[in-house]
Amino acid sequence: MDYLSIIEKSYRYTENLKDRGLLATYIPELANVDPTKFGVHLITVDGDKYGLGDHQVKFSIQSISKVLSLTLAYRILGEKIWKRLDVEPSGTKFDSLILLETFQGIPRNPFVNSGALVICDILISHLDNAHDEFLDFVRDISDLPDLKYSDHIADSEKSMGYRNVAMCNFIKSFGNIENEPEDVLDFYFDVCSLEMSCEQLARTFGFFANGGCKISDGKRVIPKSQTKRINALMLTCGFYDESGEFAFKVGLPGKSGVGGGIVAVYPNNYSVAVWSPGLNPKGNSYMGMKFLEELTTHSELSIF
Amino acid sequence: MDYLSIIEKSYRYTENLKDRGLLATYIPELANVDPTKFGVHLITVDGDKYGLGDHQVKFSIQSISKVLSLTLAYRILGEKIWKRLDVEPSGTKFDSLILLETFQGIPRNPFVNSGALVICDILISHLDNAHDEFLDFVRDISDLPDLKYSDHIADSEKSMGYRNVAMCNFIKSFGNIENEPEDVLDFYFDVCSLEMSCEQLARTFGFFANGGCKISDGKRVIPKSQTKRINALMLTCGFYDESGEFAFKVGLPGKSGVGGGIVAVYPNNYSVAVWSPGLNPKGNSYMGMKFLEELTTHSELSIF
Amino acid sequence: MDYLSIIEKSYRYTENLKDRGLLATYIPELANVDPTKFGVHLITVDGDKYGLGDHQVKFSIQSISKVLSLTLAYRILGEKIWKRLDVEPSGTKFDSLILLETFQGIPRNPFVNSGALVICDILISHLDNAHDEFLDFVRDISDLPDLKYSDHIADSEKSMGYRNVAMCNFIKSFGNIENEPEDVLDFYFDVCSLEMSCEQLARTFGFFANGGCKISDGKRVIPKSQTKRINALMLTCGFYDESGEFAFKVGLPGKSGVGGGIVAVYPNNYSVAVWSPGLNPKGNSYMGMKFLEELTTHSELSIF
Amino acid sequence: MDYLSIIEKSYRYTENLKDRGLLATYIPELANVDPTKFGVHLITVDGDKYGLGDHQVKFSIQSISKVLSLTLAYRILGEKIWKRLDVEPSGTKFDSLILLETFQGIPRNPFVNSGALVICDILISHLDNAHDEFLDFVRDISDLPDLKYSDHIADSEKSMGYRNVAMCNFIKSFGNIENEPEDVLDFYFDVCSLEMSCEQLARTFGFFANGGCKISDGKRVIPKSQTKRINALMLTCGFYDESGEFAFKVGLPGKSGVGGGIVAVYPNNYSVAVWSPGLNPKGNSYMGMKFLEELTTHSELSIF
Repeated sequence: MDYLSIIEKSYRYTENLKDRGLLATYIPELANVDPTKFGVHLITVDGDKYGLGDHQVKFSIQSISKVLSLTLAYRILGEKIWKRLDVEPSGTKFDSLILLETFQGIPRNPFVNSGALVICDILISHLDNAHDEFLDFVRDISDLPDLKYSDHIADSEKSMGYRNVAMCNFIKSFGNIENEPEDVLDFYFDVCSLEMSCEQLARTFGFFANGGCKISDGKRVIPKSQTKRINALMLTCGFYDESGEFAFKVGLPGKSGVGGGIVAVYPNNYSVAVWSPGLNPKGNSYMGMKFLEELTTHSELSIF
Repeated sequence: MDYLSIIEKSYRYTENLKDRGLLATYIPELANVDPTKFGVHLITVDGDKYGLGDHQVKFSIQSISKVLSLTLAYRILGEKIWKRLDVEPSGTKFDSLILLETFQGIPRNPFVNSGALVICDILISHLDNAHDEFLDFVRDISDLPDLKYSDHIADSEKSMGYRNVAMCNFIKSFGNIENEPEDVLDFYFDVCSLEMSCEQLARTFGFFANGGCKISDGKRVIPKSQTKRINALMLTCGFYDESGEFAFKVGLPGKSGVGGGIVAVYPNNYSVAVWSPGLNPKGNSYMGMKFLEELTTHSELSIF
Repeated sequence: MDYLSIIEKSYRYTENLKDRGLLATYIPELANVDPTKFGVHLITVDGDKYGLGDHQVKFSIQSISKVLSLTLAYRILGEKIWKRLDVEPSGTKFDSLILLETFQGIPRNPFVNSGALVICDILISHLDNAHDEFLDFVRDISDLPDLKYSDHIADSEKSMGYRNVAMCNFIKSFGNIENEPEDVLDFYFDVCSLEMSCEQLARTFGFFANGGCKISDGKRVIPKSQTKRINALMLTCGFYDESGEFAFKVGLPGKSGVGGGIVAVYPNNYSVAVWSPGLNPKGNSYMGMKFLEELTTHSELSIF
Repeated sequence: MDYLSIIEKSYRYTENLKDRGLLATYIPELANVDPTKFGVHLITVDGDKYGLGDHQVKFSIQSISKVLSLTLAYRILGEKIWKRLDVEPSGTKFDSLILLETFQGIPRNPFVNSGALVICDILISHLDNAHDEFLDFVRDISDLPDLKYSDHIADSEKSMGYRNVAMCNFIKSFGNIENEPEDVLDFYFDVCSLEMSCEQLARTFGFFANGGCKISDGKRVIPKSQTKRINALMLTCGFYDESGEFAFKVGLPGKSGVGGGIVAVYPNNYSVAVWSPGLNPKGNSYMGMKFLEELTTHSELSIF
């Protein structure tokens, strides 16, 4: 497979699109990002790398980190974790409280905000210091020993995070948050504040394409069965209420963030990250979605 | 891959489960089925076949036929079809009217009842005789020239089909049904009334595993891109509000019916059908789900 | 109380308003009504009458007749009737199916369409010939022995009544309709097709202001306790999701119809009807609402 | 009207009921109340008083105080207040977040928790010291110069108030709370913490029966038109999703609290308070509801 030419072709096609979507505005810090940024990076399970554009510029990965916190919690608790949250697509916007009320505080899946809050609560309960240990975990799987939380982004989110405060207290009122909402929220905003480049992000998610083992050194992160299951979750729930559309058009497990990043994996083949800050009306990177659609169309490499 | 031993192992495991679920009761005709029936049949893209148990006994495929009516409509209209319905998981029960009201008569996907009704409406509008031409289409892809609608099942459903009558008229009130609700419903109940054995069903769905071409004679049914997209839809929406669970535990595109049948495909590898009439609380075959979970766990053959 | 001058003052004020609302368009026959029509008629419990404008022109009373069908059903069944429907405001639009799904086929109250359908079903079950006997009942309480159903209006509604067909079949699917939906709907459309002038309407509703007895001859229609309860229902549920607004601004039990009519009663004092075909965004007569607000403000005659 | 005998008769009847409902448990402090307490007190607009049972024992009036905070806010802002909240019955439980999401942060009415939070926000914005000035207001209308907030009840509610914290932050996320959620909640819990006896409560609400003027000294509290409108609101929204039932069975404007108190007014006649801590499944005092139903049945004194 000539990845380089496929990526270049898809990159050029996307770059020439007139529309680039709109910047997220609800987090002050994200509204200041240069909207013309565009980068892609693909790493194969053999370790080959292909990068184009701003693929080495860091951006806020935001909700993409929900996959990483889930991974750590799943590794610790195993299948017991699913007593606290479900694995079904939500059918509604990522921060809706309606289904949460319908299902009595059980989030629909770990990638809606409510689910990610429950995951943070689980990590706090099961780790001595969730804040440090989660960072160590990500440092390890990303081969980025100096990775840090971004305080200015976390603070920026906190300043406008009323909806998340509402959600966390709402779940607590149903008894599905064990710790104090304030502590859960602090940790949650830290988790969302991580910054990576496309290159780093593609590398970090490499183990999802590689049966649960890091591409760089073969070290196992999670068992094969858990890898398979998180991949399934990314496919069905990774793009909020556009998840079906993504599966339909792109056909890969993946996860997006409001910072404009998207990462996707083709099991046994590659991990790919794309970044462009402008979002479509559903809150996913406008160009990122287009690029990945082109990529799987040209390469005919989708899981379907 | 030693399919035979994997299937046998999974078959024996499932057969020994104590629980078998409960028969569907809302369609009188389905309540009379022998609840101990259990059969499986797998066909590879190379044409190898493996069958066990009651795999040659016919049963009512019910909602599984929604994939076939979608296939024909998609072949006729192409992407324009998605102006009439969406491709997102519903998050609620298959016959809920709530989301239909929220989205002003646009069904969430073609596999909830409302979506299948819109597909039937499309076929009536675009074919001279939808009733006959759809049957011819299924006869062709299934290599079953004598296949017929089952009048006694269609009539049985009509006698209790108030919910579907409600749904069809509701969509019509939003302007998303072109023909008379009565005609759409008649055709819809016929489509649901088809009967096949596991062997026939696995063969009929073979082209979804084979890039859009029939396994028996290589004849193209739909383009590769449409095949990929319907597979994606089956994965995200094929099991009502248990779709996420199925993707999570089985990891294959598939479709279930209240008659207790399930068909699933592993692209480029095989098509498999399983039948056991007892249903789990979500309305999917209890043993069918268990069997497929075993199958993909033992074979490690899932798309993820 | 000088009713004449109060009514005249309120009438003049309303007549001079620039906005008159918009005609209902979903029933073809209603879209042809002269939008400049405006009439009011008040009858006191002593039998004094005051009429202005087009108060002797007939119009389609539509949903106002739901109070009359409830009255007859309540008289027949007594409190048992409330096993089939509730007495709570709906909080949503009059033809919403969402709450009906939430409450498993139990309508929120007798004045939303679903509730009125259940009332029609009850009348069919308990009367030899609901069609004739309901008409006789209304003829009797209105002193209009020649009153007839309007076939052209009933037919016009049937031609566009998909939403009501949906609703009736939906309730039937929950088991809360005993007869065939088609029969219930036929009767329902007839009930809605009655035509009266403001004068006739005010007179017909006179017994709600008069402790359950007709004003003309003192004949009892329903017991005092039932009168009180239907009055309470009209206050809390008579104006769809604008009921609170009506209670807040007008402060009288009443009922509106999409034909532009409104009838309201001040217990122990008067019954008043107003008609102007233009509707406000909530589906209630624009000028009718304004007139009644003026009337109770000037007269200081509200139940609060 | 022989109020004494009517009250006694209704009191005896209710006292002999076997069922007394269940104590509220979600606020720790309320779970410790003696469940056998039962008192009633009625005051006529002429100043006559009738009390029975524990009518001089103080209890937590809880949500009943929402009528008082609304009264003060309405007096300050006039009709402008309705830009921030609506006047429609909610149709759902008092602390549901679903309708709040549907209506983008505009509470359905001032008596659901969300509406009361917005009222608290308004008072904080428009008063120098809402905390003190609201207390002064209630002291004045109740003729209770020593009335104080109950710290132990406010603290008890705060300790379990996650749902209210959720709600306040949720409304803030829609922009309909101006102050910091923490400050609004502190004030809200104080407002709910007031304690009164039936005698004091009936007296405090006397002006709603007396055209807006205190019964004791004739001093005007609010204009007649505002009195009428708050009475209408109490009738349509005063009992959560049992408001329709209350209007239907009792037929008076009123307000209940989870402390087991209910106050109701018959305009131009009387104000009545009843207290019994056991609640029915809808969260209203079991015996309180029964007593008031008896009272209006025997006296035939309902607004309908």
